Amino acid sequence: MADELDIFSVGKKFRVASIQPLPTERKDQNLQRLQQLIFEAVKKGAKLIVLPEFATTLAPNSEDDFRSFAEEIPGPSTDLMSKSAKDHRAYIVGGSIIEKDQSGKLYNTCPVFDPYGRMILKYRKIHLFKIDRPGRLYDYQEYGNLEPGVDLGIFDTPVCKIGVGLCYDIRFQELAQIYCQKRCKLLLYPGAFNTVTGPAHLAVMQRARAIDHQVYVVTASPARDSNNPYTCWGYSSIIDPWGKIIAQAGEHEEIIFADIDLDYVEEVRQQIPVQRQKRNDLYSVYYARNKAKEI
Amino acid sequence: MADELDIFSVGKKFRVASIQPLPTERKDQNLQRLQQLIFEAVKKGAKLIVLPEFATTLAPNSEDDFRSFAEEIPGPSTDLMSKSAKDHRAYIVGGSIIEKDQSGKLYNTCPVFDPYGRMILKYRKIHLFKIDRPGRLYDYQEYGNLEPGVDLGIFDTPVCKIGVGLCYDIRFQELAQIYCQKRCKLLLYPGAFNTVTGPAHLAVMQRARAIDHQVYVVTASPARDSNNPYTCWGYSSIIDPWGKIIAQAGEHEEIIFADIDLDYVEEVRQQIPVQRQKRNDLYSVYYARNKAKEI
Repeated sequence: MADELDIFSVGKKFRVASIQPLPTERKDQNLQRLQQLIFEAVKKGAKLIVLPEFATTLAPNSEDDFRSFAEEIPGPSTDLMSKSAKDHRAYIVGGSIIEKDQSGKLYNTCPVFDPYGRMILKYRKIHLFKIDRPGRLYDYQEYGNLEPGVDLGIFDTPVCKIGVGLCYDIRFQELAQIYCQKRCKLLLYPGAFNTVTGPAHLAVMQRARAIDHQVYVVTASPARDSNNPYTCWGYSSIIDPWGKIIAQAGEHEEIIFADIDLDYVEEVRQQIPVQRQKRNDLYSVYYARNKAKEI
Repeated sequence: MADELDIFSVGKKFRVASIQPLPTERKDQNLQRLQQLIFEAVKKGAKLIVLPEFATTLAPNSEDDFRSFAEEIPGPSTDLMSKSAKDHRAYIVGGSIIEKDQSGKLYNTCPVFDPYGRMILKYRKIHLFKIDRPGRLYDYQEYGNLEPGVDLGIFDTPVCKIGVGLCYDIRFQELAQIYCQKRCKLLLYPGAFNTVTGPAHLAVMQRARAIDHQVYVVTASPARDSNNPYTCWGYSSIIDPWGKIIAQAGEHEEIIFADIDLDYVEEVRQQIPVQRQKRNDLYSVYYARNKAKEI
């Protein structure tokens, strides 16, 4: 443990990076580029690196894409992530890949690697998107084509617990509530919101999750690729517990950084003691799945 | 009931007004001004009129203010509200007054009147604010000086149920979650956020409550009075279920209007079926106080 602690800066601060890569149709090229971007992030001091949803492929444009983009775990994407984490002694939150399990079922899965390269979390997206704006947004759905996850996405580090949700998951405030009940101080949402729902919804929700829970929130998106029918919004962001955007990308390929300061979490919670003033005599939010893995 | 239905326009639409008054130190003057503003709102078609927190007084600046501003129910403020509701055949959501009950206890209370002038809800603020930013925001607290409410703030109308929270209540997403579980399609938050937390937090939270629950949200604030040590932000707002701000005041005394369209609530929920995709097998939010009044 002492060894792991070393990877963080002194005290309760550590640097997080959110990588906003521009993917191509070729996974081998994407992996190579990700390796470079991770190295850049590490050189600038990042100890925790967050990749976007669909980190090693294009954002899917059809139901067929889910199957053709899928790979097993371990596979080329997770091998790269694991190796990078170990080589650079950083936590790598692998955004997501379409995971094919041994029975051929597909999941939208976020693998997380510790500084030894060990996969310490395999979070399968709990809320699969289903959007019905005919001719306006999508002609396909995750819901019905992928399997939904049933386990929470929490991993532990020497400084704090961290909760992971994928894209559409952020719409479900219950997930953030449960993560924060379980003492997560940092919520990560790799996503691939589009140019309609990104500015209209994600921009608000990412700040609201930070304000409501008085935690840091990091989002990571692919860069905008106007040639891709499904056009990602970009604007990966890091928000502090006061709700302030402390780092934000634009549309293009970029890495953003911020220093997570756990003392500041406590300071904000001291100033406005929302977490202590919950009316637990009147209401409750609970996680009901007893057999779920808890950390 | 047929009679009450008449007060709404045809179908599932009705006009709501949020009044942002500039109060003075004299309650009699404030009541007179409110009466005028309510009349103006009615003339422009409002069927549901929302007043801000501390609707008939200044925003309190000290703990002493709570006691000196307090009045009983019924009293001059609720008499005016009841009479206006009846005269104009409109619902009036009385923002709040500091209520003194028969034993001398104080509450921050929102009275709601139906078009017959009957008080159909007396919601006592559940979450009393306690903010600790020494020398920066307040030298007083509601918490410890007022009594907290224990009942939900839901009232029914011929078109939909409506939920009420007061100011600091909006920080507690659980309240909105419970209201929406109980099928409220419109959430009202009379408040008196200040110039620090208004733009930093309320501006985000009011849109997040709308987006998360796909409901309309109305906030009502006193106008900004720079002579008052506690300076209200203003910017009363009406937000639609897509999260779009469809009406917003500035800093000054003003009335804002919007047409609530319950078909649009259903349209948004059809497009992005968040409410139907909750993972009730994994988590639950529940209201625990069995003896609470439920409508």
